[in-house]
Amino acid sequence: MDLSSLIGILSGIGFIIGCILLGGPITMFIDAPSIVIVCGGTVSSTMIAYPLGDVLGMFKVSIKVFMFKIEKPEDIIANLTEISNKARKGGLLSIEGDIQGTSDPYLAQALQMTVDGVKTDDIGDIMQKKMDLTKKNLETGSDVFRSMAAYAPAFGMIGTLIGLVQMLANLDDPSAIGPSMSVAMITTFYGAILANLLFTPMSNKLKGRNDAELTNMNIIYEGVLSIREGEHPKLMEDKLKVYLGNAAAKEKK
Amino acid sequence: MDLSSLIGILSGIGFIIGCILLGGPITMFIDAPSIVIVCGGTVSSTMIAYPLGDVLGMFKVSIKVFMFKIEKPEDIIANLTEISNKARKGGLLSIEGDIQGTSDPYLAQALQMTVDGVKTDDIGDIMQKKMDLTKKNLETGSDVFRSMAAYAPAFGMIGTLIGLVQMLANLDDPSAIGPSMSVAMITTFYGAILANLLFTPMSNKLKGRNDAELTNMNIIYEGVLSIREGEHPKLMEDKLKVYLGNAAAKEKK
Amino acid sequence: MDLSSLIGILSGIGFIIGCILLGGPITMFIDAPSIVIVCGGTVSSTMIAYPLGDVLGMFKVSIKVFMFKIEKPEDIIANLTEISNKARKGGLLSIEGDIQGTSDPYLAQALQMTVDGVKTDDIGDIMQKKMDLTKKNLETGSDVFRSMAAYAPAFGMIGTLIGLVQMLANLDDPSAIGPSMSVAMITTFYGAILANLLFTPMSNKLKGRNDAELTNMNIIYEGVLSIREGEHPKLMEDKLKVYLGNAAAKEKK
Amino acid sequence: MDLSSLIGILSGIGFIIGCILLGGPITMFIDAPSIVIVCGGTVSSTMIAYPLGDVLGMFKVSIKVFMFKIEKPEDIIANLTEISNKARKGGLLSIEGDIQGTSDPYLAQALQMTVDGVKTDDIGDIMQKKMDLTKKNLETGSDVFRSMAAYAPAFGMIGTLIGLVQMLANLDDPSAIGPSMSVAMITTFYGAILANLLFTPMSNKLKGRNDAELTNMNIIYEGVLSIREGEHPKLMEDKLKVYLGNAAAKEKK
Amino acid sequence: MDLSSLIGILSGIGFIIGCILLGGPITMFIDAPSIVIVCGGTVSSTMIAYPLGDVLGMFKVSIKVFMFKIEKPEDIIANLTEISNKARKGGLLSIEGDIQGTSDPYLAQALQMTVDGVKTDDIGDIMQKKMDLTKKNLETGSDVFRSMAAYAPAFGMIGTLIGLVQMLANLDDPSAIGPSMSVAMITTFYGAILANLLFTPMSNKLKGRNDAELTNMNIIYEGVLSIREGEHPKLMEDKLKVYLGNAAAKEKK
Repeated sequence: MDLSSLIGILSGIGFIIGCILLGGPITMFIDAPSIVIVCGGTVSSTMIAYPLGDVLGMFKVSIKVFMFKIEKPEDIIANLTEISNKARKGGLLSIEGDIQGTSDPYLAQALQMTVDGVKTDDIGDIMQKKMDLTKKNLETGSDVFRSMAAYAPAFGMIGTLIGLVQMLANLDDPSAIGPSMSVAMITTFYGAILANLLFTPMSNKLKGRNDAELTNMNIIYEGVLSIREGEHPKLMEDKLKVYLGNAAAKEKK
Repeated sequence: MDLSSLIGILSGIGFIIGCILLGGPITMFIDAPSIVIVCGGTVSSTMIAYPLGDVLGMFKVSIKVFMFKIEKPEDIIANLTEISNKARKGGLLSIEGDIQGTSDPYLAQALQMTVDGVKTDDIGDIMQKKMDLTKKNLETGSDVFRSMAAYAPAFGMIGTLIGLVQMLANLDDPSAIGPSMSVAMITTFYGAILANLLFTPMSNKLKGRNDAELTNMNIIYEGVLSIREGEHPKLMEDKLKVYLGNAAAKEKK
Repeated sequence: MDLSSLIGILSGIGFIIGCILLGGPITMFIDAPSIVIVCGGTVSSTMIAYPLGDVLGMFKVSIKVFMFKIEKPEDIIANLTEISNKARKGGLLSIEGDIQGTSDPYLAQALQMTVDGVKTDDIGDIMQKKMDLTKKNLETGSDVFRSMAAYAPAFGMIGTLIGLVQMLANLDDPSAIGPSMSVAMITTFYGAILANLLFTPMSNKLKGRNDAELTNMNIIYEGVLSIREGEHPKLMEDKLKVYLGNAAAKEKK
Repeated sequence: MDLSSLIGILSGIGFIIGCILLGGPITMFIDAPSIVIVCGGTVSSTMIAYPLGDVLGMFKVSIKVFMFKIEKPEDIIANLTEISNKARKGGLLSIEGDIQGTSDPYLAQALQMTVDGVKTDDIGDIMQKKMDLTKKNLETGSDVFRSMAAYAPAFGMIGTLIGLVQMLANLDDPSAIGPSMSVAMITTFYGAILANLLFTPMSNKLKGRNDAELTNMNIIYEGVLSIREGEHPKLMEDKLKVYLGNAAAKEKK
Repeated sequence: MDLSSLIGILSGIGFIIGCILLGGPITMFIDAPSIVIVCGGTVSSTMIAYPLGDVLGMFKVSIKVFMFKIEKPEDIIANLTEISNKARKGGLLSIEGDIQGTSDPYLAQALQMTVDGVKTDDIGDIMQKKMDLTKKNLETGSDVFRSMAAYAPAFGMIGTLIGLVQMLANLDDPSAIGPSMSVAMITTFYGAILANLLFTPMSNKLKGRNDAELTNMNIIYEGVLSIREGEHPKLMEDKLKVYLGNAAAKEKK
C-alpha cells in the first residue's frame, strides 16, 4: 500500500470539496453530462492514441500507483551474494537448484544461461535487451497517463465551448446567463482536476516506480555477469551495495 | 482493422454530439465558413511546412491509424529460424530459393547480400542505414499530424478573432452580440476537436505503429547477421525471442 | 519552384480573406499602425537576437522556401560511380580533370584532397567538419524563423494591450468601446497569422530542405571516402543507393 | 547563509506587499480558504507524484536554498595534493591514517579502496556509479520543486473556477458580483506567487547547488584515481586546478 | 559595437512608443508602482534562482549584447600557423618567446604546456576540460536572461491580478472601473515588453556570442595539438580553415 498516494488523493479531494462547501452546496458541482464529455472524450482520444491493450492495461497500471510491491534491493544483493558464494565453491553447475526457487523470471533466465555455459557477452546482450524492452513497456504506462493529462483539460475546454456557444445563441433570458455559464465552466473544472490531481501526478509516480524496477534489474544484471565471470563474491557485493547506498540515502531523507 | 482507433473516434464524436444535443439543436454547431477556415488554414500551413509528397501521403498514412497489417514478430522469427537451419545444413547458397518467396523487400535484399557473400560488416552497414532511413520516413508521417495539431487550434483562434473584430465593430444591435459571438467561438471549438480528438492521438498512434515496424526490421537485422555469421539457429532463436517476450507482455496487459 | 509552398500560402491567404468577406468589408482588417507594431516589433527583437548577417540573410533564406534547386541524389551517385570507375582504371590521379567540371565546391575540395593523396582519415575529418558547420549554418536560417514565430504573437499581444489600456482609460463614450476593442484585437490577429501561416511553416520547410542538402553531402562524403579507399565501384553504388531508396519511397508516398 | 536567496525572497515579498498597499488594505489579499486550497492541493498532488520520503525530504532540501555549506574546491585540491605527496613518498599504505580524519564519506571510501589495493578500474567504476546515483538523488530535490511550480498555478485556477461557478450560479445580487470575483481571483494570485517567487527559483538554485556538489565529487574522483595511478602530485594539481579556474571566474563575475 | 542589437532595441522601443502616441499620450503608460513590481519581482526571483555572483554578473554580461570584441578566427589561424612554422624550424622550445605576447590566456597556457613537454593527451585533456567549463560559464549568462524572460510576464500577471482584485472589491463607482483596469493591465504590458524585446532576444544573442568564443577556443585547441604533434603547418592551416569557411559563409549571407 502506497501511503503517500492514498493520503494525497484523499486530502486533495478533501481540500477541493471543503473549499466548495465553504461557498455553497456541492450539488452545484455535480453535473452528469459534464462528467461524461470530459471522461468520455479523454478515454476516446486515448484509445485513438494507443493500442487497445495499452488502454485496458491502464487500469492495471494505475493500481501500481496505490499498491506496489517490489523486492528490496538488499534482499536481491543478499541472494546474489549467496549464489555467488555457492558458485565459487561448487562451480557454476551447483547453482542449478537455486533457479527453481527464483520467483523473478529475469533472474531465473539469467542464471539458467549461466549454468548452460552461454558466453558472458551473449548473456549480457540478452539481459541488456530484456532491460531495454522492459523499460519501454513500463514507460508506456506513464506515457498513457501523461497523454490523458493533456486530453482532459482539452475536453474540459471543448465542453465549456459547447456551453458558451449555446448560451450566447440564446441570450433572450438574462437571468439564465449566470447559471448557464456556471454549468459551462464545470467541464473546465473537471478537466483541471483530472489532469492536475490525478493523471499528471500518477504518471510521475509511475516513472519513479519504473526507476525502482529497473534499478533492481540492473543489480541482477551486474550480479549475474559477475557470477558468470567468477569474480570474488566480496567484490561483487561491494559493487552492488553502491545501489543500496542510494536506497538508504533516500530513506533517510 | 484497428478496433481501438475505430471505437475511439466513434465514441469521441458520439460524446461531443450527445453533449451538444442535451443543450440544444446540433445545427447551431455546423457552420460551413468556420469549417472552411479551420480545415483550409490547417492544410495550407501544412503545405508550406512540408513537401507536396508528404502532405498528399498524409491521407495514405492516416489509413494506417485505422487499418494496419504487419507481420507478427513470431512468424518472422519462425521464418528466420527455418532459413538459419537450412543455411546450416546446405550452406548459405541453399537459401537462395527462399528469397523469391519473401514478400518483405528488406529481408529479401538482406538475404540476397548474404547469398552473394557480401561481408557481414557491409551487410550490417547497409541494413542499418536502411533502418535509419525507414525510421525517418515513418516519423515524417506522425510529424505531419503533430504539426496539424498545432495549426488547427491556431486557425480556430484566427477564425474567432475575425468574428470578434467584426462583431465589436458593429455593436449597434445589442441583440446580435450573443449570436455573433456564438458563431465566432465555433472555429475555436472546431480547432480544439481537430487537434485533440484527431491529429494529436493519430500522431501518437502512428508513432506506436512505427515502433512495431522498426522492431520487425530489428529482428530481421539481427537474424540475417546471425545467419551470415553461421551462428547456431537455436542461439539465434533465443536472442530473437527476447523481442517476443516484449510483444507477449504487451498482449497480456 | 516549390508548388506546395506556393499553393499553401495563396490558399491560406485566400481562406482568411474569404472568411473575412463573408462577414463584412476587408478594410476593417487593414490597419497600418497595427501592421507596423507587429512587423516592426518582430524584426526589432529578431535583430537583438541574431547578428545582422543572419537577419539580412533571412530574406535570402526565405526564397529557399518557395524556390529550391538541389542536385538530385541519383545524379550525384551516377557522377560518383563514374569517377570511381575512372579512378579504378586510371588511378586516383586520372580524376583530376573532373574536378574542374564540378560545380559543387564540397565535392570539388574532397576530390582535390583525394588526388593530392591526403590520408583518408584527414579527408574524412575535414569533410565531416565541413558538414557539421554547414548543418549549423543551415539551422540558423530555420532558427531565425522559429524565433520570429514566437515574437510575432507576442507583439500582437503588446499591440492589443496598448489598445485596451487606451480604451479602458477613456470609457466616457460607450459607443466607442466596440470599435476601439475591434482595432485593439487586430494586432493579435496579425501576430497569429504571421506565426501560423508564415514563420512556423517556413521554419519547418527549411528544416526539410536542410535535411535534403545534408543527405547530398553525406552521399558525397561516403562516395569520396570509398573512392579514396579504392572500394569496388559496384559496392559503392549499392551502398549509396540506400539513400535513393529513401528518396524513391518519399516520391511514391 | 545564502544572501542572494534571502534578499530575493524578502525583497520579492516586499515588492508585492508594497504594490498591494498602494492600492488598498492588505487584508483584502488574505483569505484562509484560498490559502488552504492552493497549498493543500499542491502538496496533495506532490504526494501522489513522489514517494513519501521525497515529499518530506522537500523541507530538508529547501533549507539548502537558504543555507548551504560546501567544502571549497581549493581546500579539496590542497588536501588531495598533500595526500598525493605523502603517497608518493611513503607508498599508498602511508595514507591510511588520513582516512580517519576525512569528513567526506565519498573521499574516505575512495581512499580506503586505494589503500586496500583495489584495481584502478574497479575504484573508478564504483566512484562513477556513486556519483551517478548522488546526481539522481540530488535531482529529485529540484524535480519536486519543479513539479510544485506546475501544481500551484493549476490549483490556483481550480480555486478560481470554484469561485466563479458559485458566483455565476447566484447572480441575484449584482452588488455581490465584484467582491465574489475578487475573492475567486485570489487563488490564482497565490498560485502565481508560489510558482514564480518560490518553487521555480528554488528548483533552479538547487540545480546550481547540485552542480557544485558534483564538481567537488568530480575533483575527488580524478584526484584519487591520479593518486592510485601514482601520477606526479604536480601534474595532478595542475589538472584539478582547471576546476578552480572555473570557480574563480565565477567569483570574479 | 553591435549595430544589430542597437538598431533592434532602438527601433523596437520606437515602434512601441509610436504606436502608443497614435492613440493617446504616453503618460498613460508610465506608472512607477507597476515598473517597480515587474522589475523588482523579476530581479527578486532571479536572485533566488541564481547565486549572487551570477545575478551581478548579469549586468556585465548584458554589455556583451551591445559591445562584443572577439579576435577574428582568421587572425588566430594566421597566428597559429606562424607559431607552427617557427616550431617546425626551431623546435618546440623556440616558441617560448611568443607566449609572453599572447593576450589570450587559453592559448598562452596551452603553448606553455607544449613548451614544457607535457604529453599531448594531457594537454588535450586539460584544454578540453577548460573548454567545457568555459562553455558552462558562458551558458549561465544566457540562462539568467532566459529565466528573467519567464519571470517578467509572471510578475506582470501578478501585478494585474493585484489591480483586478482591488478593483473588483470596490465596484461602487462604475466610472472608476475603466481607469482601474487600465492601470492593472500596464504590468502585463511591461512584462510582455521586458520578456519579448529584451530578455529573450538578449539570451539568444548571448548564445550566438558564446558559440563564437567556443569556435575560437576550438581552433586554438586543434591548432596547439597539431603543433605539439609536429604536424605540417600547411595541413594544420587547411584543417583550421574549415572553420573560416563557416565564418565567411555567414558574412556573405
